[in-house]
Amino acid sequence: MRTFSQEEITGLVKKLIKGDRFALSQCITLAESVQSAHQEMSQQVLIQLPIPIKPALRIAISGAPGVGKSTFIEQFGLLLIEKGYKIAVLAIDPSSTISKGSILGDKTRMQELGRQENAFIRPSPAGTTLGGVAERTKESILLCEAAGFDIILIETVGVGQSEYYAANLADFFLLLILPGAGDALQGIKRGIVEMADLIAVHKSDGNRKSLAQQTFIQYKQALHLFAPKENSWSTPVVRASSVEKTGLLEIWEMIQQFKEQVGMQALLDKRAKQDEVWLHEKLSKWVLHIYLENPKIKAQLKSISEQIIRRQLTVYEGLQKMQSVIKESTKNE
Amino acid sequence: MRTFSQEEITGLVKKLIKGDRFALSQCITLAESVQSAHQEMSQQVLIQLPIPIKPALRIAISGAPGVGKSTFIEQFGLLLIEKGYKIAVLAIDPSSTISKGSILGDKTRMQELGRQENAFIRPSPAGTTLGGVAERTKESILLCEAAGFDIILIETVGVGQSEYYAANLADFFLLLILPGAGDALQGIKRGIVEMADLIAVHKSDGNRKSLAQQTFIQYKQALHLFAPKENSWSTPVVRASSVEKTGLLEIWEMIQQFKEQVGMQALLDKRAKQDEVWLHEKLSKWVLHIYLENPKIKAQLKSISEQIIRRQLTVYEGLQKMQSVIKESTKNE
Repeated sequence: MRTFSQEEITGLVKKLIKGDRFALSQCITLAESVQSAHQEMSQQVLIQLPIPIKPALRIAISGAPGVGKSTFIEQFGLLLIEKGYKIAVLAIDPSSTISKGSILGDKTRMQELGRQENAFIRPSPAGTTLGGVAERTKESILLCEAAGFDIILIETVGVGQSEYYAANLADFFLLLILPGAGDALQGIKRGIVEMADLIAVHKSDGNRKSLAQQTFIQYKQALHLFAPKENSWSTPVVRASSVEKTGLLEIWEMIQQFKEQVGMQALLDKRAKQDEVWLHEKLSKWVLHIYLENPKIKAQLKSISEQIIRRQLTVYEGLQKMQSVIKESTKNE
Repeated sequence: MRTFSQEEITGLVKKLIKGDRFALSQCITLAESVQSAHQEMSQQVLIQLPIPIKPALRIAISGAPGVGKSTFIEQFGLLLIEKGYKIAVLAIDPSSTISKGSILGDKTRMQELGRQENAFIRPSPAGTTLGGVAERTKESILLCEAAGFDIILIETVGVGQSEYYAANLADFFLLLILPGAGDALQGIKRGIVEMADLIAVHKSDGNRKSLAQQTFIQYKQALHLFAPKENSWSTPVVRASSVEKTGLLEIWEMIQQFKEQVGMQALLDKRAKQDEVWLHEKLSKWVLHIYLENPKIKAQLKSISEQIIRRQLTVYEGLQKMQSVIKESTKNE
């Protein structure tokens, strides 16, 4: 990726706001880059974004591998387009962690949705660090919102802590689970169930229907054990099939009910709070980057961490050593 | 609290290692202080602590207010003392958040346990910040361990995110719940259930027995929906009463079973990892403190945060402003 001049950035933002997909793609690529120069350009782009007049609805969709996230997103996305919405999908490219490329994943997933004029699909590499994934996603959401999309579907892999980040970026958190207790166990962490605003037993079709019914009842009962959320929303459980196209409309209706019950003002307030947290996170990261990421300090920290892991140093001995190193390096600058 | 000279600190640590309770109390008070001078002294104390030859077993005990944490800890502690262990209790003083003192809570809770020669009870204020609570607790654990206690019981209030910190400080996480689904709902977050190594339906006594039996079965069934933990431990559910003194021995046996199944080496490795995380956290906090906590920068950050909350600034505009402020202030130093 090449660098952009200040003028080019302004031009890029102008195009983006008009809904130019190529400009949107370029901006996301900048945001996703780990290079300092790109990060600075990306920050320039983000600063120039206007506060959106009509905020896009941000829906995080999570679930264990194999639960059918991409087929769900495709069918759910098509339903939303049918209803007249412009939708952006921030998809995770499963191929990228292995092949470091994204061509295959790009082409074989969500083909029908990809052909729609009112859909924008952006597959992003799953990334190596959790923080990195979240950072890119937050920025991609803002870029898609600025480009005029009504609904942003954020796919997350349901196997780790990334859900916690995703939940903090979205207005609504949808968790897909598989029929059958045995299947439902795969990789689903209890904490993720806690965050869900809606749980859908996916692939409730064909000969899985009675199993899906059992899982549906089990989850309904299990969720009864927990208190309603702060916003007074109690997480419902539904059954859905992307193949038989059942339950999709029900999910959309529940999301609308959530919006109505919680209220747009409460959602905007939640976002403002998410933004405040985001500022502190970005700023803290920047400070830590400046003072901890220089090669000399990094090497020292690595060595001291290793000594702690080998129990040759206590935390506090290590801390004191690192404090001296940092003080020394700041002095020398 | 007065300040200590370098020599006095060395003397304090020597006494602490011999098991002197007054020295232990003083060291915890230093660790709990928010004053910079005390924090520095505390760091000196912690640096001088030897790596313990026989690590203490760290058990976090959590549950919603009213679940009977202190009566449980008292009876459980007495059982452990009967078995020949020296135990330290890091209790939360419920009175302190209101009265800012800790006299009442100190005197009325765990009276019988408090009279035991082999018990040390330290009530600490609940604190205003979560991070603060965790920081103090980690340090108190290390101090109690150095003072020769075999088992450290860490009480945490089961109403917030503090459990996540507590779970990261402990070897074993015990969650107490009340009989009756209605009661069990009070303040218990789903994520906390996920972290538990053992769930005890407490107050399973008198006319609550049949209700406790129902809750016991409900939780057993609900826990079946979740995958076993990384360490292959599946969270069991038990019933217990501190009044009728039932289930306490079963809980202790399960903790021993956990230790055996997971293995001491795995626990030590887990601690080394917790320590590495701890180093990064302490160091990051220190760096952020140095570069973000000066009054001028703090005031600016507050003002910018408020503008973000009022949606007068975007995150990225705010970020850029803060970066300039910090760069400027570093230059001037």
